[in-house]
Amino acid sequence: MADQAFVTLATNESYARGAMVLGKSLRNHNTTKKLVALVGPHVSEPCQSVLKRIFDEVRVVDVLDSGDTAHLAMMKRPDLGVTFTKLHCWTLTHYSKCVFMDADTLVLSNIDELLEREELSAAPDPGWPDCFNSGVFVFSPSNETYAKLLQHCTEHGSFDGGDQGVLNSFFNTWATADISKHLPFIYNLSSIAIYTYLPAFKQYGGNAKVVHFLGKTKPWSYTFDPKAKQISGSVHEATAHPTFLLDWWTLYSSAVVPLLQEQYGDQPFHSGCVEVKKHNHPKSSFKHITSTALLQFTTLVTTRAEASWLFSSKVMNGTRWFSFLFL
Amino acid sequence: MADQAFVTLATNESYARGAMVLGKSLRNHNTTKKLVALVGPHVSEPCQSVLKRIFDEVRVVDVLDSGDTAHLAMMKRPDLGVTFTKLHCWTLTHYSKCVFMDADTLVLSNIDELLEREELSAAPDPGWPDCFNSGVFVFSPSNETYAKLLQHCTEHGSFDGGDQGVLNSFFNTWATADISKHLPFIYNLSSIAIYTYLPAFKQYGGNAKVVHFLGKTKPWSYTFDPKAKQISGSVHEATAHPTFLLDWWTLYSSAVVPLLQEQYGDQPFHSGCVEVKKHNHPKSSFKHITSTALLQFTTLVTTRAEASWLFSSKVMNGTRWFSFLFL
Repeated sequence: MADQAFVTLATNESYARGAMVLGKSLRNHNTTKKLVALVGPHVSEPCQSVLKRIFDEVRVVDVLDSGDTAHLAMMKRPDLGVTFTKLHCWTLTHYSKCVFMDADTLVLSNIDELLEREELSAAPDPGWPDCFNSGVFVFSPSNETYAKLLQHCTEHGSFDGGDQGVLNSFFNTWATADISKHLPFIYNLSSIAIYTYLPAFKQYGGNAKVVHFLGKTKPWSYTFDPKAKQISGSVHEATAHPTFLLDWWTLYSSAVVPLLQEQYGDQPFHSGCVEVKKHNHPKSSFKHITSTALLQFTTLVTTRAEASWLFSSKVMNGTRWFSFLFL
Repeated sequence: MADQAFVTLATNESYARGAMVLGKSLRNHNTTKKLVALVGPHVSEPCQSVLKRIFDEVRVVDVLDSGDTAHLAMMKRPDLGVTFTKLHCWTLTHYSKCVFMDADTLVLSNIDELLEREELSAAPDPGWPDCFNSGVFVFSPSNETYAKLLQHCTEHGSFDGGDQGVLNSFFNTWATADISKHLPFIYNLSSIAIYTYLPAFKQYGGNAKVVHFLGKTKPWSYTFDPKAKQISGSVHEATAHPTFLLDWWTLYSSAVVPLLQEQYGDQPFHSGCVEVKKHNHPKSSFKHITSTALLQFTTLVTTRAEASWLFSSKVMNGTRWFSFLFL
């Protein structure tokens, strides 16, 4: 149906790149729905141009400039700026139903079936599982709901300072009312779940349809060597989901960076892709492990006090090998 | 109704003490249900005697000695010993309905209303929220279900090596079929949730009815000074929920230790209660904070590289103060 859409939000340059990768991942899995990007007022012109090549609709949302109830709400709760921008998705009333997806999510298979669900459908948050995670949710655009949400925001604020707190206290029967509004966790698989219950991730994680790079460190916080297919980062940026991260960077470097290069032309810009020089540090060590052992090992990596690390993956003789280099 | 019960399991001396505290906490909150303790064959005579003074029924379960289908199942899957012992609760067919509670849980208010739920009702596991946590669940004793569970165990094993994996793959429609079988998270509040989504804990944690001391470090892993109301432990045993831990130790030292002392008589036994000597270490520092600041602070404590710490709490001029002493 043409009146259904996937919607995301890019509040700055970094999140705009996340949105581009998300859009490309939806296209690659042959979505039949429209793609919409809400864009904060500070996203640059070249980034907006690239977004327009991937998304059907790119809408700049400047809450402070709107002169409407959102502006008034924002004056009362200036701390909730990004939240108000996100809530703007309810004004997309030319669509009957939408799925909102945070720009730090990545689609791993076709998920058009989500549009068969009703508002407000979402997956549980692993931090407090009676709350839903607001990184992926099904909603029905409506100016009436939008107005009520703004009113709720100004009256009650947000218990967590963001949109998840607002949406959970507004849609406060999610945990108890209707099981069909509980999206399976594989539609919003947060990285944290890999740490906290590894056997369940091994049992069910293979069916993941959407991965959500929760936490402070986002895919775009790393750098990537496209030739060596190698991700690098400091130990603070170690990750529990290097294969998902590699999926993200592979898609970004192959399908998004060329579009950015076209738009930026001769202007310099930081793509995050760099050629990593070979390290001959005496303390260096390569660990080759199979995918079965990978998950336990990444948990180990994240607790090591090493200064920094490199991660890469390649297939040799039909077996996928993972390499960690501690610098 | 007399044919309903709370059931717990004590596999060894330590868990037996947990079971005693759990039983006392249920009694203190005026449960009208029966209390049943399943006991592993290695729990000592004095411990069994104390359990009999708190519980209506204490049943020793020795799977290897049972000579029945459980014995046969155990021969095929010796790794699942404790799991088979726990599954034994389904044989309590003189009760129509029961709530199973792990011995590392503590009841904070009357929870008899759980018996109005149907099998299998349980709260989500924060590690993988499409799985239920098997630390608290409602079930209907039945020899038929018991036989099917044993068969399932021997055929499929357990994806996490314990009862939670078995029960989740047996009752595999929990995540999708019936919202009334999702117990609110406050009936099985795992310590891990306090870390991972602190604002939600602050918003909803005050309504906690059952706290579950998940993880390797159990309440009985610490020591306690009843006079000073002071818990001590090494940094590896730092906790995100010192007030719940204090609740546990206060109940244990006041209501359980006297029963143990009566049973052990002149025999020596380790109660975990010790008088802590005053520390005059030059690096010592007391931090006094109000309960509002406590939670952020405990997160900080657990990441400090201090060798060990003490925690205490007291009310002065109507305000509760918390003290941390880093040794």
